[in-house]
Amino acid sequence: MRDNLTNLKYTNELQQKYSNLTRSVNEEFINIHPIQRGGILTPEAYKALIAYADGYSLCDNCLKGRIDKIENPPVIEFLKDSASYFNIENIMPTGAARKAKQIVMKILSKKYPKRKTVVVDSLAHYTTYLAIETNDLRVREVPHEGYPEFQLNSERFREIINYVIKQESEPPLLVVLTHVDYKYGNYNDPNPIGEICQEFDIPFLLNAAYSGGILPIDCKNAHIDFLACSGHKSMAASGPIGLLGFKEEYYEDVMVHSKIEGNITNKSFHNKICTFMGCPPVYGAPLVTLMASFPTIVKRTQEKYVSEESKKVNYVIKNIQKIKDLKVLGVLPKIHPLTNVETECFQKVAETHPRRGFFLREEFKERGIIGMLPGISKEIKFNTFNLTWDQVQYFTQVFMDIAKKYQLL
Amino acid sequence: MRDNLTNLKYTNELQQKYSNLTRSVNEEFINIHPIQRGGILTPEAYKALIAYADGYSLCDNCLKGRIDKIENPPVIEFLKDSASYFNIENIMPTGAARKAKQIVMKILSKKYPKRKTVVVDSLAHYTTYLAIETNDLRVREVPHEGYPEFQLNSERFREIINYVIKQESEPPLLVVLTHVDYKYGNYNDPNPIGEICQEFDIPFLLNAAYSGGILPIDCKNAHIDFLACSGHKSMAASGPIGLLGFKEEYYEDVMVHSKIEGNITNKSFHNKICTFMGCPPVYGAPLVTLMASFPTIVKRTQEKYVSEESKKVNYVIKNIQKIKDLKVLGVLPKIHPLTNVETECFQKVAETHPRRGFFLREEFKERGIIGMLPGISKEIKFNTFNLTWDQVQYFTQVFMDIAKKYQLL
Repeated sequence: MRDNLTNLKYTNELQQKYSNLTRSVNEEFINIHPIQRGGILTPEAYKALIAYADGYSLCDNCLKGRIDKIENPPVIEFLKDSASYFNIENIMPTGAARKAKQIVMKILSKKYPKRKTVVVDSLAHYTTYLAIETNDLRVREVPHEGYPEFQLNSERFREIINYVIKQESEPPLLVVLTHVDYKYGNYNDPNPIGEICQEFDIPFLLNAAYSGGILPIDCKNAHIDFLACSGHKSMAASGPIGLLGFKEEYYEDVMVHSKIEGNITNKSFHNKICTFMGCPPVYGAPLVTLMASFPTIVKRTQEKYVSEESKKVNYVIKNIQKIKDLKVLGVLPKIHPLTNVETECFQKVAETHPRRGFFLREEFKERGIIGMLPGISKEIKFNTFNLTWDQVQYFTQVFMDIAKKYQLL
Repeated sequence: MRDNLTNLKYTNELQQKYSNLTRSVNEEFINIHPIQRGGILTPEAYKALIAYADGYSLCDNCLKGRIDKIENPPVIEFLKDSASYFNIENIMPTGAARKAKQIVMKILSKKYPKRKTVVVDSLAHYTTYLAIETNDLRVREVPHEGYPEFQLNSERFREIINYVIKQESEPPLLVVLTHVDYKYGNYNDPNPIGEICQEFDIPFLLNAAYSGGILPIDCKNAHIDFLACSGHKSMAASGPIGLLGFKEEYYEDVMVHSKIEGNITNKSFHNKICTFMGCPPVYGAPLVTLMASFPTIVKRTQEKYVSEESKKVNYVIKNIQKIKDLKVLGVLPKIHPLTNVETECFQKVAETHPRRGFFLREEFKERGIIGMLPGISKEIKFNTFNLTWDQVQYFTQVFMDIAKKYQLL
């Protein structure tokens, strides 16, 4: 071991390089980045994060070798409570919503080896496609109704399901609906699609990465078999953590116990769940911050808070629509505050601006607003979730001021 | 959506239940839990954790849609520097060391579909077995030399490899060596086994979950093809984060780019890596804390610090060996500070103690030392890593005091 000299050596320069990793996004700025608003920690989560900062501190009192069986802090209770909240029989944590989707496709592929096609709406997140690809499955998209609303029509799901059955003599393996999509922030009602899936007896997964923790979800009511949520995206948790919700009928398929045995030692690990490689990778801050934020999650998805959040985004939209050559995409009025705006107006400015496409982000940043993509002026994505009304009004004002500066009103 | 009432409602009781998740392990206690010592954050990591607490804050400045390409904070730099530190061509973050092992077996299974057996030392962690099981592979254990040292003999690897080749007419898919094992904390030199693997041209993985960040590792020198590390276990990072190191010759096998295309939208994601589902689940605090601790990791694995840590554990051992009917297991003197002690002495006490097997943990806890398993008195596992000399002496003293109290000296 003494000869085991590693190449990179400790130096003061190395120490300096990594010892001051601060976030440029601080309290002085309003961050309207679409994927950041829902993941901002609650004060309770901050406290838990600091308490459970180290390594896998959550496992201090793991007595059964399974994260889902930890009593202190109350992981068991949390999994039950969150299942009750989403109205589905079981919840297990995962590394992220994408992993939940990958797991579901894998276990269904084992259950129905002849079924090879996953039906998805055409606003699905790239990770839905990657979950299909990594399970060696085929994708079959359900078209949206196109520009400018990109609305989904549930009857199109029926058409595509029928098409798959006709083409392949097998039903689709799974239907995935993106509850709220990443691009236009459209809210898609799961109920009619859940009913169609029930009619055809096809498992139904709701990808709630952008909605679970922001909007209420009732899995039973909507005939949802599997739910994928994202703690860091929408549930005020420190990343990475997802949740996989699943109906009791799939319990044995998901909770696959280890059967391997050592050929010499005879060691076995029957208590460990293969699907999660023993324990899913959420052992430290992620799960404990999600738990600490959970009461706030339950509260903020009550009707009165949800409708207040809708009011905020629709207030911004009502105002910015006064700007020339600007078009808000997606279905209006908005339910979810993730918003996509076509800004031909700013694109024209960029053509002759010395900072080109970068001018827009810089104009916002100068005024204390960050989260815009750099270099892009033809489209803006923002999310007003959980901004105060003062911040919403300020953001609107900044938007209008920039438009005014460039004579776009 | 208005009818979507969820079952579990917000109440003050719910708020209370989760709003005060504090860790009982606090500054008043010395935690000697074997899996907790190496994951304790550095001050720099604490600072980074607080700055990057929210959701997936690390991705604020993600311009290329890939975590491994983020420039600010310097993820690209860190991956290069850590590769240089371990002396291997490539490093990618993963959810945990277990995931790194699972990935390696998966990509090798694709490359060598006829090879079905993974050779492992018989002190391998359960997650090595689960990685084998979830890849539908067979395990073939290399025996250790038995009680009380449980030493590995590298020549036994050669025997098992030859046996597999004879039995299956195919070489093993992979040889896995546990660098430091979870049970006895034995240090196993990778060099002779790396040489054997090279001789047979079989890929060699070093499971460094307990060692990377504690002991120096030089992959090139030891002919290591793949390295699995654990940030939360041994690299002063907030969980969960692992590292997968791999040689350049496996670059294309690991970095599999997405090829799927939407059948209607034609959407494709060629930039995304299937192996990691786009980005591995380390987006928030995990990666940034690992980065912040990295200079300390490089420093603490220098020879002088490593030998100081060995001195500490061997000091404890030298003293507690004076206790009657107590035997330190594993190879002595110790290199890695994870230690397993057979305590027949305490087991005898437990037989008549009113608190039975729980007495031992309680005796330690009363004296400010935690991390012992509850209810177990016949065996103690502890880890002195990064304790101060004062703490090491105090821990030794407590050990001796308890022995004295029960007339075991």
